[in-house]
Amino acid sequence: MDIVKPRTLSGFMELLPEDQMKMERMMQILRETYMCFAFTPLDTPVIESAEVLLAKGGGETEKQIYRFQKGDSDLALRFDLTVPLAKYVAAHYAELAFPFRRYQIGKVYRGERAQRGRFREFYQADIDVIGDGKLDILNEAEIPAIIYSAFTRLGLKRFCIRVNNRKLLNGFYRMNGMAEKASEIMRIVDKLDKIGEVKVKQLLIDELAMRPYKAENILGFMAIRGTTSEILERLESYRGMDDIFDKGLEELRTVTRYLAEFGVPAENFAVDLTIARGLDYYTGTVYETTLTDHPEIGSVCSGGRYDNLAGYYTDRQLPGVGISIGLTRLFYVLQEQKLLSDELMTAPCDVLVLPMTENLAPAVSAATALRAAGLRTQLYGEQKKFKQKMSYADRIHVPYVVLLGEDEISEGILSVKNMETGEQRKLTAEEAANLILRTVREKNALPPITG
Amino acid sequence: MDIVKPRTLSGFMELLPEDQMKMERMMQILRETYMCFAFTPLDTPVIESAEVLLAKGGGETEKQIYRFQKGDSDLALRFDLTVPLAKYVAAHYAELAFPFRRYQIGKVYRGERAQRGRFREFYQADIDVIGDGKLDILNEAEIPAIIYSAFTRLGLKRFCIRVNNRKLLNGFYRMNGMAEKASEIMRIVDKLDKIGEVKVKQLLIDELAMRPYKAENILGFMAIRGTTSEILERLESYRGMDDIFDKGLEELRTVTRYLAEFGVPAENFAVDLTIARGLDYYTGTVYETTLTDHPEIGSVCSGGRYDNLAGYYTDRQLPGVGISIGLTRLFYVLQEQKLLSDELMTAPCDVLVLPMTENLAPAVSAATALRAAGLRTQLYGEQKKFKQKMSYADRIHVPYVVLLGEDEISEGILSVKNMETGEQRKLTAEEAANLILRTVREKNALPPITG
Repeated sequence: MDIVKPRTLSGFMELLPEDQMKMERMMQILRETYMCFAFTPLDTPVIESAEVLLAKGGGETEKQIYRFQKGDSDLALRFDLTVPLAKYVAAHYAELAFPFRRYQIGKVYRGERAQRGRFREFYQADIDVIGDGKLDILNEAEIPAIIYSAFTRLGLKRFCIRVNNRKLLNGFYRMNGMAEKASEIMRIVDKLDKIGEVKVKQLLIDELAMRPYKAENILGFMAIRGTTSEILERLESYRGMDDIFDKGLEELRTVTRYLAEFGVPAENFAVDLTIARGLDYYTGTVYETTLTDHPEIGSVCSGGRYDNLAGYYTDRQLPGVGISIGLTRLFYVLQEQKLLSDELMTAPCDVLVLPMTENLAPAVSAATALRAAGLRTQLYGEQKKFKQKMSYADRIHVPYVVLLGEDEISEGILSVKNMETGEQRKLTAEEAANLILRTVREKNALPPITG
Repeated sequence: MDIVKPRTLSGFMELLPEDQMKMERMMQILRETYMCFAFTPLDTPVIESAEVLLAKGGGETEKQIYRFQKGDSDLALRFDLTVPLAKYVAAHYAELAFPFRRYQIGKVYRGERAQRGRFREFYQADIDVIGDGKLDILNEAEIPAIIYSAFTRLGLKRFCIRVNNRKLLNGFYRMNGMAEKASEIMRIVDKLDKIGEVKVKQLLIDELAMRPYKAENILGFMAIRGTTSEILERLESYRGMDDIFDKGLEELRTVTRYLAEFGVPAENFAVDLTIARGLDYYTGTVYETTLTDHPEIGSVCSGGRYDNLAGYYTDRQLPGVGISIGLTRLFYVLQEQKLLSDELMTAPCDVLVLPMTENLAPAVSAATALRAAGLRTQLYGEQKKFKQKMSYADRIHVPYVVLLGEDEISEGILSVKNMETGEQRKLTAEEAANLILRTVREKNALPPITG
């Protein structure tokens, strides 16, 4: 047979088993967190009609999309989970109860130029709350609690959930007579982190023909720093000049009011007036989440409030609020920064049963009993020398090995070897199961991220 | 904005939230079962290079495949999980420990003609054990235990795991001087269930120019029925005529020897000499699983032993044994046959917290406490009338509602309403959490399938 080189496309993540276990653990934690906050799982097709997927239009998206013909159909792979959600809610509107809260963890596709850390197939882990006509601000206030819960369960400690409000920004630009230039201003101000105040000011003056004092006004507003209450206090000085601004300030006050009751510590939260989020469709609270020790990574969980999820599919007004975690990229940077825990249980099993006799019946029974006790149990059946069997146990990093020879069988017990300490004990099947379960539960309670 | 009709492609399953919960539950049970038997999770790309994916060639596959160009690349969507596994094992050979046991639950794509119950995007839930050069027969003996465990946990009772052995069949055809026609014979004999003995005999005679007594020999062999030990006894009468047959008989004896120790009841297991499995690459034990009351569905879990997983990617001999569940199709037929449980918890949350006061702090605190106790908790923030709030609770089928008005707040308690019985009680937060947890745990212990 002709041999084809087995390769995986560049830009596609394919993990080795131990890393895959870490990834699965992270996904499981996100699923549990999202469900804990009452989001229901959703699963939409990876392939959609191109007409449906591109209903909104949009330049960058259209260039990157995987689009192809099959028979007479013009098809495309989803490039995010928001457009499929919009389609789903519009199509199933009559069958859903609103507010509709869904989570979806799935692969999306963008044919970006291949480069280190950029993926063409990647997981997004999204939640959204969709209202029918209206959606209460309390939903926006709850989002930081969800982000905090997810990141804490993952094992992260030093992170900051940053929020801003688009009405505050829009109102501020309007009160300065710059309403029609707001999106261009935001595009430039977004570079503050990268190029600094001086250059941003120059860009505002050069590109938007802005008067220097107006540029200074903007930079002064963006420079407001402090605790949440200090920032709110400073923002009060702008009150009464623009009703959109005032509305945004009220929303920001509500979003920050219940943080303690939501269990979000002050040190993991900040109001940050420089956050705008690129997408035009955000209209209220916007969120970004950064790792305190790794600002270079940028936001690892972002989103916001929008007023019109599915305008291109339905006349109904469907406001919502949502956040998205770029899971593949997050995993990649955590791996690069060596922030993934080595303590995590990544073995394919909790215990490996090694039969040492011709008749395998006692070993099969022992394995069946250990499984019934809740242990991931591998029965090793290969005809190999003892040394090779133990080297396999080492290689898969299994924490315990059960040895079953003539002696053990006649005594009705198991020899249980702790592979970490090398200690070997003779135990009944029940004692063995309890001992291993204890260790395994401890290991499984460890978070996947150290940081 | 122009409105595009939000539609989902035909042949693509997209479930409503309550059905999606059932599907997720089934997937979770399969994941847990597979892990219990020491399979490690794997996740490979949906898109592969067409050259890699089609290395094996093959007519039907090539016609159905989703294949397209992106830039200069000739790409294709995976049509099963076996070819990606072969690629993975060949590519990562040096980094894997053998036997390598992996499970993968993922979507695969086949552009079949659209018809009821046929899907173009569907989940497969696969396990495989891959050996390096050799793989012990014990791995084949373990497979029925895995199928039994998976189906029992899903809630199925009346199902039968049918096994046969390809060496038995090949040996039998060889001893009858029909070795070179074996695969054609198997193709015809495969129709036994559908068209019956008489017509199969005629086809053997007409299409393969077989003498009538030889056709009768074949049908006589296929007609061997009885308990496992009765069938083994009958097969003994063929021993000594062909060494491949004798090898197959030994293998079948081993596969059936430890069934009791593996915990597989006799009534869920049968040797069935008519099973051949279409694919040419099976070389030992083959498996099919049927629902006793729904034979028309055909096999819902199939697989077998093969000697050469990845011959088109590597010179290494990689034998293995695996099974696959066509999960999307299984879900579809269970739904059609009304075999999915209505008792299952499909609500997005275990408890809905309804604040009845202006200040939401106590409601937020209550929701946070219920979540910390492990309950999926939804905080309802919409400004609606009480009746509308309760109708939302009804609509999402939440089992409990917590009401929090001035009275409850001043007393420091929660009013907990059981939505099934209508009973309402005043409880402390801890009492409420314990009560709801008990109910939820009971409901979550119910299997997703009734049958």
